[in-house]
Amino acid sequence: MRIITVSREFGSGGRELGKRLADALNISYYDREIITAVAERTNLDEKYVEIALDQSVLSQIPISYSRTFSLLPDLVNSPAALLAQQHKAIEELAARGDCVIVGRNAETILKDFHPLKLFVYADKESKIERCLQRETKKESLSVHEIEKMMKQIDKARATNHDILSSFAWGDKREYHLCINTSGIEIKTLIPSIASYAENWFVQMQK
Amino acid sequence: MRIITVSREFGSGGRELGKRLADALNISYYDREIITAVAERTNLDEKYVEIALDQSVLSQIPISYSRTFSLLPDLVNSPAALLAQQHKAIEELAARGDCVIVGRNAETILKDFHPLKLFVYADKESKIERCLQRETKKESLSVHEIEKMMKQIDKARATNHDILSSFAWGDKREYHLCINTSGIEIKTLIPSIASYAENWFVQMQK
Repeated sequence: MRIITVSREFGSGGRELGKRLADALNISYYDREIITAVAERTNLDEKYVEIALDQSVLSQIPISYSRTFSLLPDLVNSPAALLAQQHKAIEELAARGDCVIVGRNAETILKDFHPLKLFVYADKESKIERCLQRETKKESLSVHEIEKMMKQIDKARATNHDILSSFAWGDKREYHLCINTSGIEIKTLIPSIASYAENWFVQMQK
Repeated sequence: MRIITVSREFGSGGRELGKRLADALNISYYDREIITAVAERTNLDEKYVEIALDQSVLSQIPISYSRTFSLLPDLVNSPAALLAQQHKAIEELAARGDCVIVGRNAETILKDFHPLKLFVYADKESKIERCLQRETKKESLSVHEIEKMMKQIDKARATNHDILSSFAWGDKREYHLCINTSGIEIKTLIPSIASYAENWFVQMQK
């Protein structure tokens, strides 16, 4: 079984890297599917699930997006309960076979699957640049706003991660390969990372 | 110009990786040459230079290996002065053209050469295992002794590094690629790292 998890700093291009890597290796890529699975399991709105999961479990968010708010006990729609459902959803997806999963603490959740764990990061300037390029006309954030968002999102990722793992989020000892994407076009990295991954699985399955 | 620096934890296989990478890319590999250059510049014994440079600059070591001890003023053979000579020697070697340099703070010393900076690390068990395999019959250290040596050497590397850099030794933000060699045969990693490096230089020289 070849499971690859991609943890990443916001704006580092980790999602693009994960998607392209899955394509190059011709294996599944799970992203939206995880949100959908959690929404189905909890009977909550996908948009709500997405927002709730991306926040820190420690921040209590109002359940304004719930489509069935009044019917659900707190136990089911609390952020912690959503994370538990996400845990199960990720395990079920991984059990289907070879895949790439970006974020969502998959590196910790799937430890019994012995995944290849990547961490993607970059310097601040490169991450801001990447966010600016990604912006649509509708949402034009200032550099200052992007920086603020970047900090908030990474902080939430770190908090959610650190609940599960004995390593701090981004500590290289938890990962097999840490990739600095500063100034690099993601797609050019794919052939060598795909070959790295293929070799790694051969070595590990010896 | 393609300069690759390899920083590494003791026992992680960084030296082997650097040597093999240089061979794969058909570029120079500098290791012993640096010691020799410093010994020539200072008129000190190579063995002494090697030991002195591998210690922390903060620890004052007796000059028992010096072949010209009585003739040299303290200024010349102090650990700090040796590090300064090493700095010059590394710059001169790098100026000759494409190369791989392992350790010796080359990643910081050569920053104006815009090197590709690798960091090689592994979990403790793998590093001990690698040290045990490397042992000759003559020097058979116990696991406990290896562990102790590993800590001492990495501490000295960290101390020497941190004098020069604004990042802590091993902080992934200082490097372009951090490679965890736990359980991996180094030589199998070379083709994909060589291809990663080649691509990286193309991207950076755009």
